[in-house]
Amino acid sequence: MKQRVISALIISVIGVSAVVIGGIVLDVLLLAIATIGLYEFYGAFAKKGHSPIKIFGLVYIAFFALMLFLDGESYMTVLVDTKVHGTINLFPPIFIISLMALLAVIVFQFEKYNIVDIAITLFGGFYVVLLLSYFVRLRDLSGGIYLFFIALVGAVATDTFAFFVGKKFGKRKLLPSVSPKKTVAGSVGGFLGNIILITIIGAVLIYSDTYTGMALYHYIILGALIGIVAQVGDLVASAIKRYAGVKDFGKIIPGHGGILDRIDSYIFTVPVVYYYLLLFGIGGVLK
Amino acid sequence: MKQRVISALIISVIGVSAVVIGGIVLDVLLLAIATIGLYEFYGAFAKKGHSPIKIFGLVYIAFFALMLFLDGESYMTVLVDTKVHGTINLFPPIFIISLMALLAVIVFQFEKYNIVDIAITLFGGFYVVLLLSYFVRLRDLSGGIYLFFIALVGAVATDTFAFFVGKKFGKRKLLPSVSPKKTVAGSVGGFLGNIILITIIGAVLIYSDTYTGMALYHYIILGALIGIVAQVGDLVASAIKRYAGVKDFGKIIPGHGGILDRIDSYIFTVPVVYYYLLLFGIGGVLK
Repeated sequence: MKQRVISALIISVIGVSAVVIGGIVLDVLLLAIATIGLYEFYGAFAKKGHSPIKIFGLVYIAFFALMLFLDGESYMTVLVDTKVHGTINLFPPIFIISLMALLAVIVFQFEKYNIVDIAITLFGGFYVVLLLSYFVRLRDLSGGIYLFFIALVGAVATDTFAFFVGKKFGKRKLLPSVSPKKTVAGSVGGFLGNIILITIIGAVLIYSDTYTGMALYHYIILGALIGIVAQVGDLVASAIKRYAGVKDFGKIIPGHGGILDRIDSYIFTVPVVYYYLLLFGIGGVLK
Repeated sequence: MKQRVISALIISVIGVSAVVIGGIVLDVLLLAIATIGLYEFYGAFAKKGHSPIKIFGLVYIAFFALMLFLDGESYMTVLVDTKVHGTINLFPPIFIISLMALLAVIVFQFEKYNIVDIAITLFGGFYVVLLLSYFVRLRDLSGGIYLFFIALVGAVATDTFAFFVGKKFGKRKLLPSVSPKKTVAGSVGGFLGNIILITIIGAVLIYSDTYTGMALYHYIILGALIGIVAQVGDLVASAIKRYAGVKDFGKIIPGHGGILDRIDSYIFTVPVVYYYLLLFGIGGVLK
Protein backbone atom coordinates (compact mmCIF):
# COMPACT_ATOMS: atom_id res chain seq x y z
CA MET A 1 0.00 0.00 0.00
CA LYS A 2 2.82 2.40 0.98
CA GLN A 3 4.62 1.42 -2.23
CA ARG A 4 1.42 2.07 -4.23
CA VAL A 5 1.11 5.59 -2.79
CA ILE A 6 4.77 6.44 -3.34
CA SER A 7 4.80 5.34 -6.98
CA ALA A 8 1.42 7.01 -7.53
CA LEU A 9 2.96 10.26 -6.30
CA ILE A 10 6.06 9.86 -8.46
CA ILE A 11 3.93 9.09 -11.55
CA SER A 12 1.67 12.06 -10.84
CA VAL A 13 4.63 14.42 -10.49
CA ILE A 14 6.20 13.19 -13.73
CA GLY A 15 2.85 13.19 -15.56
CA VAL A 16 1.70 16.60 -14.35
CA SER A 17 5.07 18.23 -15.08
CA ALA A 18 5.16 16.73 -18.58
CA VAL A 19 1.61 17.94 -19.34
CA VAL A 20 2.32 21.42 -17.95
CA ILE A 21 5.60 21.73 -19.85
CA GLY A 22 4.02 20.12 -22.91
CA GLY A 23 5.88 20.22 -26.21
CA ILE A 24 8.81 17.86 -26.71
CA VAL A 25 8.84 16.71 -23.07
CA LEU A 26 5.25 15.44 -23.28
CA ASP A 27 5.92 14.00 -26.74
CA VAL A 28 8.87 11.94 -25.52
CA LEU A 29 6.98 10.71 -22.45
CA LEU A 30 3.99 9.68 -24.60
CA LEU A 31 6.25 7.93 -27.09
CA ALA A 32 7.78 5.93 -24.23
CA ILE A 33 4.32 5.11 -22.82
CA ALA A 34 3.05 4.02 -26.26
CA THR A 35 6.07 1.79 -26.86
CA ILE A 36 6.00 0.10 -23.45
CA GLY A 37 2.18 -0.18 -23.52
CA LEU A 38 2.12 -1.76 -26.98
CA TYR A 39 4.75 -4.34 -26.02
CA GLU A 40 2.86 -5.10 -22.79
CA PHE A 41 -0.24 -5.69 -24.95
CA TYR A 42 1.64 -8.04 -27.29
CA GLY A 43 3.29 -9.73 -24.32
CA ALA A 44 -0.08 -10.62 -22.80
CA PHE A 45 -1.18 -12.34 -26.04
CA ALA A 46 2.17 -14.13 -26.32
CA LYS A 47 1.51 -15.58 -22.84
CA LYS A 48 -1.81 -16.90 -24.17
CA GLY A 49 0.00 -18.69 -27.00
CA HIS A 50 -0.55 -16.19 -29.81
CA SER A 51 2.36 -14.78 -31.83
CA PRO A 52 1.79 -11.06 -32.36
CA ILE A 53 4.45 -9.73 -34.71
CA LYS A 54 6.16 -7.55 -32.12
CA ILE A 55 8.62 -6.00 -34.56
CA PHE A 56 5.63 -4.60 -36.46
CA GLY A 57 4.73 -2.56 -33.42
CA LEU A 58 7.62 -0.33 -34.48
CA VAL A 59 5.59 0.70 -37.54
CA TYR A 60 2.84 2.06 -35.29
CA ILE A 61 5.38 3.68 -32.98
CA ALA A 62 7.00 5.29 -36.03
CA PHE A 63 3.57 6.58 -37.13
CA PHE A 64 3.09 8.04 -33.66
CA ALA A 65 6.58 9.60 -33.56
CA LEU A 66 5.98 11.14 -36.98
CA MET A 67 2.67 12.57 -35.78
CA LEU A 68 4.16 13.82 -32.51
CA PHE A 69 6.99 15.72 -34.11
CA LEU A 70 4.80 17.41 -36.69
CA ASP A 71 3.15 20.61 -35.56
CA GLY A 72 -0.37 20.62 -34.17
CA GLU A 73 -1.93 21.70 -37.43
CA SER A 74 -0.77 18.77 -39.49
CA TYR A 75 -1.52 15.74 -37.35
CA MET A 76 -1.64 12.55 -39.36
CA THR A 77 -0.53 14.50 -42.40
CA VAL A 78 2.93 14.28 -43.84
CA LEU A 79 3.09 16.84 -46.58
CA VAL A 80 4.70 15.81 -49.82
CA ASP A 81 4.75 17.64 -53.09
CA THR A 82 3.12 16.08 -56.10
CA LYS A 83 2.70 17.25 -59.66
CA VAL A 84 -1.03 16.84 -59.28
CA HIS A 85 -1.89 19.09 -56.38
CA GLY A 86 -0.02 20.80 -53.59
CA THR A 87 0.07 18.17 -50.90
CA ILE A 88 -1.19 14.70 -50.06
CA ASN A 89 -1.46 12.82 -46.79
CA LEU A 90 1.26 10.17 -46.72
CA PHE A 91 -0.29 8.24 -43.83
CA PRO A 92 -2.94 6.34 -45.80
CA PRO A 93 -0.49 4.95 -48.37
CA ILE A 94 2.02 4.05 -45.64
CA PHE A 95 -0.77 2.41 -43.67
CA ILE A 96 -2.09 0.42 -46.65
CA ILE A 97 1.40 -0.72 -47.67
CA SER A 98 2.23 -1.74 -44.08
CA LEU A 99 -1.12 -3.56 -43.87
CA MET A 100 -0.23 -5.54 -47.01
CA ALA A 101 3.28 -6.20 -45.70
CA LEU A 102 1.76 -7.41 -42.43
CA LEU A 103 -0.53 -9.75 -44.37
CA ALA A 104 2.38 -11.01 -46.46
CA VAL A 105 3.93 -12.33 -43.24
CA ILE A 106 1.37 -15.17 -43.06
CA VAL A 107 2.39 -16.16 -46.59
CA PHE A 108 6.14 -16.18 -46.13
CA GLN A 109 6.07 -17.26 -42.46
CA PHE A 110 3.04 -19.56 -42.72
CA GLU A 111 4.30 -22.07 -40.15
CA LYS A 112 5.12 -19.34 -37.64
CA TYR A 113 2.24 -16.85 -37.86
CA ASN A 114 -1.46 -17.05 -38.69
CA ILE A 115 -4.10 -14.47 -39.59
CA VAL A 116 -5.20 -14.14 -35.95
CA ASP A 117 -1.67 -13.04 -35.01
CA ILE A 118 -1.93 -10.43 -37.75
CA ALA A 119 -5.30 -9.22 -36.46
CA ILE A 120 -3.92 -8.97 -32.90
CA THR A 121 -0.82 -7.11 -34.13
CA LEU A 122 -2.95 -4.55 -35.97
CA PHE A 123 -5.38 -4.29 -33.08
CA GLY A 124 -2.59 -3.37 -30.66
CA GLY A 125 -1.77 -0.40 -32.83
CA PHE A 126 -5.33 0.85 -32.56
CA TYR A 127 -6.02 0.01 -28.92
CA VAL A 128 -2.77 1.39 -27.52
CA VAL A 129 -1.15 3.79 -29.99
CA LEU A 130 -4.11 5.36 -31.81
CA LEU A 131 -6.02 6.01 -28.58
CA LEU A 132 -2.88 7.41 -26.92
CA SER A 133 -2.35 9.80 -29.84
CA TYR A 134 -5.38 11.76 -28.59
CA PHE A 135 -3.38 12.81 -25.53
CA VAL A 136 -1.37 15.15 -27.78
CA ARG A 137 -4.38 16.25 -29.76
CA LEU A 138 -6.26 17.21 -26.61
CA ARG A 139 -3.24 18.88 -25.02
CA ASP A 140 -2.73 20.99 -28.14
CA LEU A 141 -6.23 22.47 -28.11
CA SER A 142 -6.36 25.99 -26.73
CA GLY A 143 -7.05 25.54 -23.02
CA GLY A 144 -6.09 21.94 -23.73
CA ILE A 145 -4.07 21.74 -20.54
CA TYR A 146 -7.26 22.15 -18.46
CA LEU A 147 -9.28 19.79 -20.64
CA PHE A 148 -6.48 17.23 -20.49
CA PHE A 149 -6.40 17.30 -16.70
CA ILE A 150 -10.19 17.00 -16.59
CA ALA A 151 -9.98 13.81 -18.69
CA LEU A 152 -7.29 12.38 -16.39
CA VAL A 153 -8.60 13.63 -13.03
CA GLY A 154 -12.08 12.47 -14.04
CA ALA A 155 -10.80 8.94 -14.71
CA VAL A 156 -8.99 8.80 -11.36
CA ALA A 157 -11.94 10.36 -9.50
CA THR A 158 -14.45 7.91 -11.01
CA ASP A 159 -12.23 5.02 -9.94
CA THR A 160 -11.71 6.44 -6.42
CA PHE A 161 -15.38 7.29 -5.78
CA ALA A 162 -16.33 3.83 -7.08
CA PHE A 163 -13.84 2.22 -4.69
CA PHE A 164 -15.07 3.96 -1.54
CA VAL A 165 -18.78 3.96 -2.36
CA GLY A 166 -18.50 0.30 -3.32
CA LYS A 167 -16.65 -0.47 -0.07
CA LYS A 168 -19.38 1.20 2.01
CA PHE A 169 -22.59 0.35 0.13
CA GLY A 170 -21.57 -2.29 -2.42
CA LYS A 171 -23.71 -5.42 -2.42
CA ARG A 172 -24.66 -6.59 -5.93
CA LYS A 173 -21.64 -7.41 -8.09
CA LEU A 174 -21.36 -5.42 -11.35
CA LEU A 175 -19.68 -7.92 -13.69
CA PRO A 176 -18.13 -10.63 -11.49
CA SER A 177 -16.77 -12.64 -14.42
CA VAL A 178 -14.81 -9.65 -15.72
CA SER A 179 -13.88 -7.87 -12.49
CA PRO A 180 -14.93 -9.74 -9.31
CA LYS A 181 -14.55 -6.82 -6.87
CA LYS A 182 -16.63 -4.16 -8.64
CA THR A 183 -20.18 -3.50 -7.42
CA VAL A 184 -23.20 -1.78 -8.94
CA ALA A 185 -23.28 0.72 -6.07
CA GLY A 186 -19.61 1.53 -6.64
CA SER A 187 -20.18 2.05 -10.35
CA VAL A 188 -23.08 4.42 -9.73
CA GLY A 189 -21.12 6.20 -6.99
CA GLY A 190 -18.14 6.68 -9.29
CA PHE A 191 -20.38 8.07 -12.01
CA LEU A 192 -22.27 10.53 -9.78
CA GLY A 193 -19.21 11.52 -7.73
CA ASN A 194 -17.32 12.34 -10.91
CA ILE A 195 -20.12 14.53 -12.30
CA ILE A 196 -20.10 16.54 -9.07
CA LEU A 197 -16.30 16.88 -8.98
CA ILE A 198 -15.90 17.88 -12.65
CA THR A 199 -18.75 20.40 -12.27
CA ILE A 200 -17.02 21.94 -9.24
CA ILE A 201 -13.71 22.07 -11.15
CA GLY A 202 -15.53 23.74 -14.04
CA ALA A 203 -17.13 26.30 -11.74
CA VAL A 204 -13.73 27.13 -10.23
CA LEU A 205 -12.09 27.46 -13.66
CA ILE A 206 -14.87 29.76 -14.91
CA TYR A 207 -15.40 31.97 -11.89
CA SER A 208 -11.66 32.36 -11.26
CA ASP A 209 -11.28 33.39 -14.92
CA THR A 210 -8.64 30.67 -15.27
CA TYR A 211 -10.32 29.07 -18.28
CA THR A 212 -13.55 30.42 -19.69
CA GLY A 213 -13.59 28.53 -23.00
CA MET A 214 -16.45 26.29 -21.86
CA ALA A 215 -19.84 26.96 -20.22
CA LEU A 216 -20.63 25.15 -16.95
CA TYR A 217 -23.17 22.72 -18.45
CA HIS A 218 -20.38 21.29 -20.65
CA TYR A 219 -18.56 20.22 -17.46
CA ILE A 220 -21.67 18.42 -16.26
CA ILE A 221 -21.98 16.54 -19.57
CA LEU A 222 -18.22 15.79 -19.68
CA GLY A 223 -18.35 14.60 -16.06
CA ALA A 224 -21.08 12.12 -17.03
CA LEU A 225 -19.29 10.96 -20.19
CA ILE A 226 -16.00 10.49 -18.33
CA GLY A 227 -17.81 8.73 -15.48
CA ILE A 228 -19.05 6.14 -17.98
CA VAL A 229 -16.13 5.61 -20.38
CA ALA A 230 -13.52 5.58 -17.59
CA GLN A 231 -15.26 2.54 -16.12
CA VAL A 232 -15.68 0.89 -19.54
CA GLY A 233 -11.99 1.43 -20.31
CA ASP A 234 -11.03 -0.13 -16.99
CA LEU A 235 -13.31 -3.14 -17.58
CA VAL A 236 -12.05 -3.62 -21.15
CA ALA A 237 -8.50 -3.94 -19.84
CA SER A 238 -9.72 -6.41 -17.21
CA ALA A 239 -11.49 -8.49 -19.87
CA ILE A 240 -8.32 -8.56 -22.01
CA LYS A 241 -6.23 -9.64 -19.00
CA ARG A 242 -8.80 -12.32 -18.13
CA TYR A 243 -8.56 -13.66 -21.66
CA ALA A 244 -4.75 -13.62 -21.62
CA GLY A 245 -4.73 -15.13 -18.13
CA VAL A 246 -2.50 -12.41 -16.66
CA LYS A 247 -3.13 -10.41 -13.48
CA ASP A 248 -1.35 -7.29 -14.77
CA PHE A 249 -0.01 -6.21 -18.16
CA GLY A 250 3.42 -5.69 -16.59
CA LYS A 251 5.24 -4.75 -13.42
CA ILE A 252 7.11 -1.61 -14.46
CA ILE A 253 5.24 0.52 -11.88
CA PRO A 254 5.75 -0.88 -8.34
CA GLY A 255 2.33 -1.63 -6.83
CA HIS A 256 0.45 -0.66 -9.99
CA GLY A 257 1.50 -3.27 -12.52
CA GLY A 258 2.18 -2.21 -16.11
CA ILE A 259 1.77 0.99 -18.05
CA LEU A 260 -1.45 -0.33 -19.64
CA ASP A 261 -2.91 -1.09 -16.21
CA ARG A 262 -2.39 2.56 -15.37
CA ILE A 263 -3.68 4.17 -18.59
CA ASP A 264 -6.57 1.80 -19.38
CA SER A 265 -9.16 4.45 -18.41
CA TYR A 266 -7.29 7.45 -19.81
CA ILE A 267 -7.14 6.02 -23.33
CA PHE A 268 -10.96 6.03 -23.23
CA THR A 269 -11.61 9.36 -21.51
CA VAL A 270 -9.12 11.49 -23.48
CA PRO A 271 -10.47 10.74 -27.00
CA VAL A 272 -14.05 11.16 -25.78
CA VAL A 273 -13.29 14.58 -24.24
CA TYR A 274 -11.37 15.57 -27.38
CA TYR A 275 -14.20 14.73 -29.77
CA TYR A 276 -16.85 16.19 -27.49
CA LEU A 277 -15.02 19.51 -27.72
CA LEU A 278 -14.36 19.15 -31.43
CA LEU A 279 -17.88 18.11 -32.41
CA PHE A 280 -19.63 20.68 -30.27
CA GLY A 281 -17.12 23.26 -31.38
CA ILE A 282 -16.68 24.83 -27.99
CA GLY A 283 -15.45 28.39 -28.56
CA GLY A 284 -11.86 28.72 -29.70
CA VAL A 285 -11.11 25.17 -28.69
CA LEU A 286 -8.93 24.71 -31.75
CA LYS A 287 -5.60 26.46 -32.12
CA MET B 1 -14.67 -26.32 -66.21
CA LYS B 2 -17.55 -25.31 -68.53
CA GLN B 3 -19.35 -23.89 -65.51
CA ARG B 4 -16.19 -21.97 -64.52
CA VAL B 5 -15.96 -20.37 -67.95
CA ILE B 6 -19.66 -19.46 -68.10
CA SER B 7 -19.70 -17.79 -64.69
CA ALA B 8 -16.37 -16.11 -65.46
CA LEU B 9 -17.98 -14.61 -68.57
CA ILE B 10 -21.09 -13.50 -66.67
CA ILE B 11 -18.98 -11.92 -63.92
CA SER B 12 -16.78 -10.16 -66.49
CA VAL B 13 -19.80 -8.76 -68.31
CA ILE B 14 -21.37 -7.49 -65.08
CA GLY B 15 -18.05 -6.15 -63.80
CA VAL B 16 -16.99 -4.45 -67.03
CA SER B 17 -20.40 -2.86 -67.54
CA ALA B 18 -20.48 -1.57 -63.98
CA VAL B 19 -16.98 -0.07 -64.29
CA VAL B 20 -17.77 1.51 -67.66
CA ILE B 21 -21.08 2.95 -66.44
CA GLY B 22 -19.48 3.88 -63.12
CA GLY B 23 -21.38 6.16 -60.77
CA ILE B 24 -24.24 4.69 -58.75
CA VAL B 25 -24.21 1.38 -60.62
CA LEU B 26 -20.58 0.69 -59.66
CA ASP B 27 -21.26 1.98 -56.13
CA VAL B 28 -24.13 -0.43 -55.58
CA LEU B 29 -22.18 -3.38 -57.01
CA LEU B 30 -19.19 -2.58 -54.77
CA LEU B 31 -21.41 -2.23 -51.74
CA ALA B 32 -22.87 -5.66 -52.46
CA ILE B 33 -19.37 -7.14 -52.96
CA ALA B 34 -18.12 -5.56 -49.71
CA THR B 35 -21.08 -6.87 -47.73
CA ILE B 36 -20.92 -10.42 -49.06
CA GLY B 37 -17.10 -10.46 -48.87
CA LEU B 38 -17.04 -9.27 -45.26
CA TYR B 39 -19.58 -11.90 -44.19
CA GLU B 40 -17.63 -14.59 -46.04
CA PHE B 41 -14.54 -13.46 -44.10
CA TYR B 42 -16.39 -13.64 -40.76
CA GLY B 43 -17.95 -16.94 -41.75
CA ALA B 44 -14.54 -18.54 -42.31
CA PHE B 45 -13.43 -17.56 -38.78
CA ALA B 46 -16.72 -18.76 -37.31
CA LYS B 47 -16.00 -22.18 -38.87
CA LYS B 48 -12.63 -22.14 -37.05
CA GLY B 49 -14.45 -21.59 -33.74
CA HIS B 50 -13.99 -17.83 -33.39
CA SER B 51 -16.95 -15.50 -32.85
CA PRO B 52 -16.50 -12.40 -35.01
CA ILE B 53 -19.23 -9.89 -34.16
CA LYS B 54 -20.96 -10.11 -37.52
CA ILE B 55 -23.48 -7.38 -36.77
CA PHE B 56 -20.57 -4.99 -36.37
CA GLY B 57 -19.69 -5.54 -39.99
CA LEU B 58 -22.64 -3.28 -40.71
CA VAL B 59 -20.69 -0.38 -39.18
CA TYR B 60 -17.95 -0.84 -41.79
CA ILE B 61 -20.51 -1.29 -44.55
CA ALA B 62 -22.20 1.92 -43.39
CA PHE B 63 -18.81 3.70 -43.51
CA PHE B 64 -18.35 2.42 -47.04
CA ALA B 65 -21.86 3.39 -48.14
CA LEU B 66 -21.32 6.87 -46.68
CA MET B 67 -18.05 7.16 -48.56
CA LEU B 68 -19.53 5.83 -51.81
CA PHE B 69 -22.40 8.25 -51.88
CA LEU B 70 -20.26 11.28 -51.19
CA ASP B 71 -18.72 12.93 -54.22
CA GLY B 72 -15.19 12.10 -55.33
CA GLU B 73 -13.70 15.12 -53.63
CA SER B 74 -14.79 14.24 -50.14
CA TYR B 75 -13.95 10.58 -49.70
CA MET B 76 -13.73 9.59 -46.06
CA THR B 77 -14.91 13.03 -45.12
CA VAL B 78 -18.37 13.80 -43.88
CA LEU B 79 -18.61 17.54 -43.71
CA VAL B 80 -20.25 19.02 -40.66
CA ASP B 81 -20.35 22.59 -39.54
CA THR B 82 -18.80 23.50 -36.22
CA LYS B 83 -18.49 26.79 -34.38
CA VAL B 84 -14.73 26.34 -34.39
CA HIS B 85 -13.83 26.11 -38.04
CA GLY B 86 -15.64 25.40 -41.26
CA THR B 87 -15.72 21.65 -41.42
CA ILE B 88 -14.38 18.59 -39.68
CA ASN B 89 -14.02 14.99 -40.75
CA LEU B 90 -16.68 12.94 -39.01
CA PHE B 91 -15.05 9.58 -39.82
CA PRO B 92 -12.37 9.61 -37.09
CA PRO B 93 -14.82 10.29 -34.23
CA ILE B 94 -17.28 7.71 -35.59
CA PHE B 95 -14.43 5.22 -35.93
CA ILE B 96 -13.09 5.85 -32.41
CA ILE B 97 -16.55 5.61 -30.86
CA SER B 98 -17.34 2.40 -32.76
CA LEU B 99 -13.92 1.01 -31.72
CA MET B 100 -14.79 1.68 -28.06
CA ALA B 101 -18.27 0.21 -28.53
CA LEU B 102 -16.69 -2.86 -30.12
CA LEU B 103 -14.35 -3.19 -27.13
CA ALA B 104 -17.25 -2.76 -24.71
CA VAL B 105 -18.73 -5.97 -26.15
CA ILE B 106 -16.08 -8.10 -24.36
CA VAL B 107 -17.11 -6.44 -21.10
CA PHE B 108 -20.86 -6.88 -21.39
CA GLN B 109 -20.72 -10.17 -23.34
CA PHE B 110 -17.63 -11.59 -21.62
CA GLU B 111 -18.78 -15.21 -21.76
CA LYS B 112 -19.64 -14.94 -25.45
CA TYR B 113 -16.84 -12.89 -27.02
CA ASN B 114 -13.14 -12.37 -26.32
CA ILE B 115 -10.59 -9.80 -27.45
CA VAL B 116 -9.48 -12.02 -30.35
CA ASP B 117 -13.02 -11.95 -31.74
CA ILE B 118 -12.86 -8.15 -31.53
CA ALA B 119 -9.51 -8.06 -33.33
CA ILE B 120 -10.87 -10.33 -36.09
CA THR B 121 -14.01 -8.22 -36.42
CA LEU B 122 -11.98 -5.05 -36.86
CA PHE B 123 -9.53 -6.75 -39.17
CA GLY B 124 -12.31 -7.81 -41.53
CA GLY B 125 -13.24 -4.18 -41.96
CA PHE B 126 -9.71 -3.36 -43.06
CA TYR B 127 -8.96 -6.43 -45.16
CA VAL B 128 -12.24 -6.46 -47.08
CA VAL B 129 -13.94 -3.08 -46.89
CA LEU B 130 -11.04 -0.61 -46.66
CA LEU B 131 -9.12 -2.28 -49.49
CA LEU B 132 -12.28 -2.46 -51.62
CA SER B 133 -12.89 1.25 -51.10
CA TYR B 134 -9.91 1.91 -53.38
CA PHE B 135 -11.91 0.56 -56.32
CA VAL B 136 -14.01 3.73 -56.26
CA ARG B 137 -11.03 5.97 -55.59
CA LEU B 138 -9.15 4.58 -58.57
CA ARG B 139 -12.20 4.63 -60.83
CA ASP B 140 -12.80 8.30 -59.99
CA LEU B 141 -9.34 9.44 -61.05
CA SER B 142 -9.30 11.08 -64.46
CA GLY B 143 -8.56 8.25 -66.85
CA GLY B 144 -9.42 6.07 -63.88
CA ILE B 145 -11.42 3.71 -66.05
CA TYR B 146 -8.23 2.66 -67.91
CA LEU B 147 -6.15 2.46 -64.73
CA PHE B 148 -8.88 0.43 -63.05
CA PHE B 149 -8.93 -2.11 -65.87
CA ILE B 150 -5.13 -2.30 -65.80
CA ALA B 151 -5.28 -3.20 -62.08
CA LEU B 152 -7.91 -5.88 -62.75
CA VAL B 153 -6.61 -7.23 -66.07
CA GLY B 154 -3.09 -7.30 -64.59
CA ALA B 155 -4.29 -9.46 -61.68
CA VAL B 156 -6.07 -11.89 -64.01
CA ALA B 157 -3.13 -11.93 -66.46
CA THR B 158 -0.57 -12.63 -63.71
CA ASP B 159 -2.69 -15.54 -62.51
CA THR B 160 -3.22 -16.90 -66.03
CA PHE B 161 0.43 -16.64 -67.12
CA ALA B 162 1.47 -18.24 -63.82
CA PHE B 163 -0.96 -21.10 -64.43
CA PHE B 164 0.24 -21.96 -67.95
CA VAL B 165 3.96 -21.31 -67.39
CA GLY B 166 3.76 -23.35 -64.19
CA LYS B 167 1.96 -26.17 -66.01
CA LYS B 168 4.66 -26.28 -68.69
CA PHE B 169 7.88 -25.54 -66.80
CA GLY B 170 6.92 -25.75 -63.12
CA LYS B 171 9.15 -27.98 -60.99
CA ARG B 172 10.10 -26.43 -57.66
CA LYS B 173 7.08 -25.60 -55.49
CA LEU B 174 6.71 -21.94 -54.47
CA LEU B 175 5.08 -22.22 -51.03
CA PRO B 176 3.64 -25.74 -50.77
CA SER B 177 2.30 -25.25 -47.24
CA VAL B 178 0.24 -22.23 -48.33
CA SER B 179 -0.71 -23.17 -51.88
CA PRO B 180 0.43 -26.66 -52.94
CA LYS B 181 0.00 -26.21 -56.70
CA LYS B 182 1.98 -23.00 -57.23
CA THR B 183 5.51 -23.26 -58.62
CA VAL B 184 8.48 -20.88 -58.72
CA ALA B 185 8.50 -21.02 -62.54
CA GLY B 186 4.81 -20.12 -62.61
CA SER B 187 5.33 -17.20 -60.27
CA VAL B 188 8.16 -15.81 -62.38
CA GLY B 189 6.17 -16.44 -65.57
CA GLY B 190 3.17 -14.59 -64.18
CA PHE B 191 5.35 -11.67 -63.18
CA LEU B 192 7.18 -11.33 -66.51
CA GLY B 193 4.12 -12.09 -68.63
CA ASN B 194 2.18 -9.39 -66.86
CA ILE B 195 4.90 -6.76 -67.37
CA ILE B 196 4.86 -7.49 -71.12
CA LEU B 197 1.05 -7.43 -71.35
CA ILE B 198 0.60 -4.20 -69.35
CA THR B 199 3.36 -2.54 -71.36
CA ILE B 200 1.63 -3.52 -74.62
CA ILE B 201 -1.70 -2.21 -73.29
CA GLY B 202 0.04 1.03 -72.31
CA ALA B 203 1.59 1.38 -75.76
CA VAL B 204 -1.81 0.86 -77.39
CA LEU B 205 -3.49 3.41 -75.08
CA ILE B 206 -0.79 5.99 -75.76
CA TYR B 207 -0.29 5.57 -79.50
CA SER B 208 -4.02 5.32 -80.17
CA ASP B 209 -4.45 8.57 -78.18
CA THR B 210 -7.05 6.73 -76.05
CA TYR B 211 -5.36 7.68 -72.78
CA THR B 212 -2.17 9.70 -72.70
CA GLY B 213 -2.10 10.57 -68.97
CA MET B 214 0.82 8.23 -68.35
CA ALA B 215 4.20 7.69 -70.03
CA LEU B 216 5.06 4.17 -71.21
CA TYR B 217 7.67 3.49 -68.49
CA HIS B 218 4.91 3.87 -65.88
CA TYR B 219 3.14 0.88 -67.46
CA ILE B 220 6.31 -1.19 -67.14
CA ILE B 221 6.63 -0.29 -63.44
CA LEU B 222 2.91 -0.86 -62.80
CA GLY B 223 3.10 -4.19 -64.64
CA ALA B 224 5.88 -5.27 -62.29
CA LEU B 225 4.10 -4.01 -59.15
CA ILE B 226 0.84 -5.69 -60.15
CA GLY B 227 2.72 -8.89 -61.06
CA ILE B 228 4.01 -9.06 -57.47
CA VAL B 229 1.09 -7.88 -55.32
CA ALA B 230 -1.50 -9.86 -57.31
CA GLN B 231 0.34 -13.05 -56.33
CA VAL B 232 0.77 -11.92 -52.72
CA GLY B 233 -2.94 -11.09 -52.47
CA ASP B 234 -3.83 -14.52 -53.83
CA LEU B 235 -1.48 -16.25 -51.37
CA VAL B 236 -2.75 -14.20 -48.42
CA ALA B 237 -6.29 -15.42 -49.11
CA SER B 238 -4.96 -19.00 -49.37
CA ALA B 239 -3.16 -18.65 -46.02
CA ILE B 240 -6.34 -17.34 -44.38
CA LYS B 241 -8.37 -20.22 -45.83
CA ARG B 242 -5.73 -22.72 -44.66
CA TYR B 243 -5.96 -21.30 -41.16
CA ALA B 244 -9.77 -21.41 -41.17
CA GLY B 245 -9.71 -24.88 -42.69
CA VAL B 246 -11.98 -23.97 -45.60
CA LYS B 247 -11.38 -24.63 -49.29
CA ASP B 248 -13.26 -21.55 -50.46
CA PHE B 249 -14.68 -18.49 -48.71
CA GLY B 250 -18.10 -19.24 -50.18
CA LYS B 251 -19.91 -20.79 -53.10
CA ILE B 252 -21.88 -17.85 -54.46
CA ILE B 253 -20.05 -18.01 -57.83
CA PRO B 254 -20.49 -21.44 -59.46
CA GLY B 255 -17.03 -22.93 -60.09
CA HIS B 256 -15.20 -20.00 -58.45
CA GLY B 257 -16.24 -20.21 -54.80
CA GLY B 258 -16.98 -17.02 -52.92
CA ILE B 259 -16.66 -13.34 -53.69
CA LEU B 260 -13.42 -13.12 -51.66
CA ASP B 261 -11.90 -15.99 -53.65
CA ARG B 262 -12.52 -13.90 -56.75
CA ILE B 263 -11.31 -10.50 -55.52
CA ASP B 264 -8.35 -11.59 -53.35
CA SER B 265 -5.83 -10.26 -55.90
CA TYR B 266 -7.79 -7.16 -56.91
CA ILE B 267 -7.93 -5.81 -53.36
CA PHE B 268 -4.12 -5.76 -53.47
CA THR B 269 -3.54 -4.48 -57.01
CA VAL B 270 -6.11 -1.67 -56.99
CA PRO B 271 -4.79 0.23 -53.93
CA VAL B 272 -1.20 -0.20 -55.14
CA VAL B 273 -2.02 1.23 -58.58
CA TYR B 274 -4.00 4.04 -56.95
CA TYR B 275 -1.18 5.13 -54.66
CA TYR B 276 1.45 4.72 -57.35
CA LEU B 277 -0.45 7.25 -59.42
CA LEU B 278 -1.14 9.51 -56.46
CA LEU B 279 2.40 9.50 -55.07
CA PHE B 280 4.11 9.96 -58.40
CA GLY B 281 1.55 12.56 -59.30
CA ILE B 282 1.05 11.38 -62.84
CA GLY B 283 -0.27 14.32 -64.86
CA GLY B 284 -3.89 15.22 -64.24
CA VAL B 285 -4.53 11.93 -62.55
CA LEU B 286 -6.69 13.63 -59.94
CA LYS B 287 -10.04 15.14 -60.79
